[in-house]
Amino acid sequence: MPTNRLVTLTTDFGLNDHFVGTMRGVITNINPAALIVDICNNVQSFDILDAAITISQAYRYFATDAVHLVCVDPGVGSNRRPLLVQTERHIFLAPDNGVLSLVYEREERLSVRHITAEHYFLQPVSNTFHGRDIFAAIAGWLSKGVECSKFGDEITDFVRFSTPRPKVLSPNQLKAVVLKVDKFGNLITNISAADVPTLFGEPPTEFKLTVGKAEITKLKHCFSEGAPGEVFCVVGSMGFVEVVANRGNASVAIQAGKGAEVQMTFAQPQFANVAAPA
Amino acid sequence: MPTNRLVTLTTDFGLNDHFVGTMRGVITNINPAALIVDICNNVQSFDILDAAITISQAYRYFATDAVHLVCVDPGVGSNRRPLLVQTERHIFLAPDNGVLSLVYEREERLSVRHITAEHYFLQPVSNTFHGRDIFAAIAGWLSKGVECSKFGDEITDFVRFSTPRPKVLSPNQLKAVVLKVDKFGNLITNISAADVPTLFGEPPTEFKLTVGKAEITKLKHCFSEGAPGEVFCVVGSMGFVEVVANRGNASVAIQAGKGAEVQMTFAQPQFANVAAPA
Amino acid sequence: MPTNRLVTLTTDFGLNDHFVGTMRGVITNINPAALIVDICNNVQSFDILDAAITISQAYRYFATDAVHLVCVDPGVGSNRRPLLVQTERHIFLAPDNGVLSLVYEREERLSVRHITAEHYFLQPVSNTFHGRDIFAAIAGWLSKGVECSKFGDEITDFVRFSTPRPKVLSPNQLKAVVLKVDKFGNLITNISAADVPTLFGEPPTEFKLTVGKAEITKLKHCFSEGAPGEVFCVVGSMGFVEVVANRGNASVAIQAGKGAEVQMTFAQPQFANVAAPA
Repeated sequence: MPTNRLVTLTTDFGLNDHFVGTMRGVITNINPAALIVDICNNVQSFDILDAAITISQAYRYFATDAVHLVCVDPGVGSNRRPLLVQTERHIFLAPDNGVLSLVYEREERLSVRHITAEHYFLQPVSNTFHGRDIFAAIAGWLSKGVECSKFGDEITDFVRFSTPRPKVLSPNQLKAVVLKVDKFGNLITNISAADVPTLFGEPPTEFKLTVGKAEITKLKHCFSEGAPGEVFCVVGSMGFVEVVANRGNASVAIQAGKGAEVQMTFAQPQFANVAAPA
Repeated sequence: MPTNRLVTLTTDFGLNDHFVGTMRGVITNINPAALIVDICNNVQSFDILDAAITISQAYRYFATDAVHLVCVDPGVGSNRRPLLVQTERHIFLAPDNGVLSLVYEREERLSVRHITAEHYFLQPVSNTFHGRDIFAAIAGWLSKGVECSKFGDEITDFVRFSTPRPKVLSPNQLKAVVLKVDKFGNLITNISAADVPTLFGEPPTEFKLTVGKAEITKLKHCFSEGAPGEVFCVVGSMGFVEVVANRGNASVAIQAGKGAEVQMTFAQPQFANVAAPA
Repeated sequence: MPTNRLVTLTTDFGLNDHFVGTMRGVITNINPAALIVDICNNVQSFDILDAAITISQAYRYFATDAVHLVCVDPGVGSNRRPLLVQTERHIFLAPDNGVLSLVYEREERLSVRHITAEHYFLQPVSNTFHGRDIFAAIAGWLSKGVECSKFGDEITDFVRFSTPRPKVLSPNQLKAVVLKVDKFGNLITNISAADVPTLFGEPPTEFKLTVGKAEITKLKHCFSEGAPGEVFCVVGSMGFVEVVANRGNASVAIQAGKGAEVQMTFAQPQFANVAAPA
């Protein structure tokens, strides 16, 4: 039985142009039986962190052996390398710009290859659309079962960044950041259960969170617990504290967006080891 | 031959985030051969009527035995129930918030189940993303052929609402409403052939329709019959009177949108039994 | 082995409504095994040139025998004809409004049929949604392997337009136009290698290009060669000169969009035969 690996797409190529459709053409031309699944093709333009969050949230729900093509690639045509990354269960294709950093964080075993097997590329390779000429072509061949080792040698000096983590300012205080705003206007912070375990308890510890024009003291279980117009917190499906509204757009309401600073103060001390303030 | 039911998606999760991609991962992880077809993932946020219209227009064009996942779910995490609905030809998964009301209106035979079989859910179930943890998982199992009866018992007290219907104000007059505005700016009213049969005749009965800044007396056969800049009516593909422009955005032109009141006055009496004005 | 032709979709039906989902239903109802691939469903509303560019860029990357459904159709319901076009490797379905003109330009062998086989249509055929009632239905039957000749007879008087080409104003000067602005804000002009071969040399010939508020003298290899805030030219993946910015939106920066005039002046004479200025 021939291998037929699922291919997923995560790009900032958007929905208004031929870009993603052309990539689907390249993949299905190489493997007519390829199954292509969109994760998201409307990542914020050039936004490597947004893409990193998107792929890191989605990939682990896919079956073993999926090929995840991630192309947010402002360095296309420069000397940044195209990568093929294997984890225990999945395969990733991406430019070497850190877009897989949050995958690297989650995975214990990593093999990272510099893709150099140009005979698999579409020729001539353009300087501005490697999503078509390199990544889609390689995805097509991978989906047909070509072995990862055929595409290039392992490297160790690939680019990675660390997710911004909350900073402890005092035993009672945390400084965090809004990682992204989703389609509904929910603000996803970088505060997780690991940062403040008591906040995820029942009942949660008392707190005051400030972000934009909002000062929030309520952590509710779900959106519909909120009163009309109220902005409050929930523990979101990504595992982070989110600032939300019930049937409303919290980001618009509090005039805060991606990158906004979040201050969180607790009634009880939470942090034994206080780092120096940032 | 194993069952492989098609899965369709109708959600308000949008196109900018990982949400729909993650759901596709859950489904294909359970059933790698699943065929997933998007109906629309950009339903207006939290807008149950918009979702109800969308699924009711699309589902009946699909083959028998399709599984339609409909997730516009502002009550996620509360005690609203997840439902599995069978009609003569199709299967639906949706929260019990009325989003299937227009399907219920069209179908004579309905079996509505409260999904309680938690062993089919992803664990732990989040409070804010049942599209992933419940609905996508159940869709995956249904697509593999698991019987509907395995997921929970039938109920009869499910939530349903009636589509807003035009109101007869006098033998010559109707009050209606704009149900939705489509991508082109066409305003879809709730006036159908059943409401004013003579309007759908050839030639149509004389009328004056007012909505927003427009006063319309023309019902044309198609968009291109309109003069440049003219706003006029057509009988749209959904079976309703629509207010449209030729190569233009009628909603912008007449400054009216979803929910706008529509008054329709006829030269000849149309309605024998006049209800009291609203 | 039964035929199963891939079906691609290029439409202006957008992502907010049931339109494209309904078409997918029609296709899969006729051929449950149909593989449907989106090229782009967010073509600018009513914009035949935008659709023509989109399909012409994407189709040739698909495998032989794909069925490309192209529906940007402001004349729907009028007497404009539905077409089935065969080229050496592909099949196209589209209204006869010129939307395939750029395909016609690229292909030497063309067979163009007027689709008249109404027994393949959904009945009744609406006046405003032939994407559903005609084109999707025909695509479904084509994907199952029905022969093209079954759908209607060949015609020769189909509508076609010529792509706007640059005009030579003097031996040193060209007047061109912005064909489209992509999702990133890159402005794609209609200047190709065939127009100014020396511009695509290494190094490129010296030039000054003016468009909107920009006066550009740099042609770089890729986006990341640009300084922050700089607007410059690259040879894009579509084979045209593009006006771009590094991690920025050139269209916003220079306040120019689709249809904007482009003047290009060269240090050295480029054009032997000078046509009269437009």
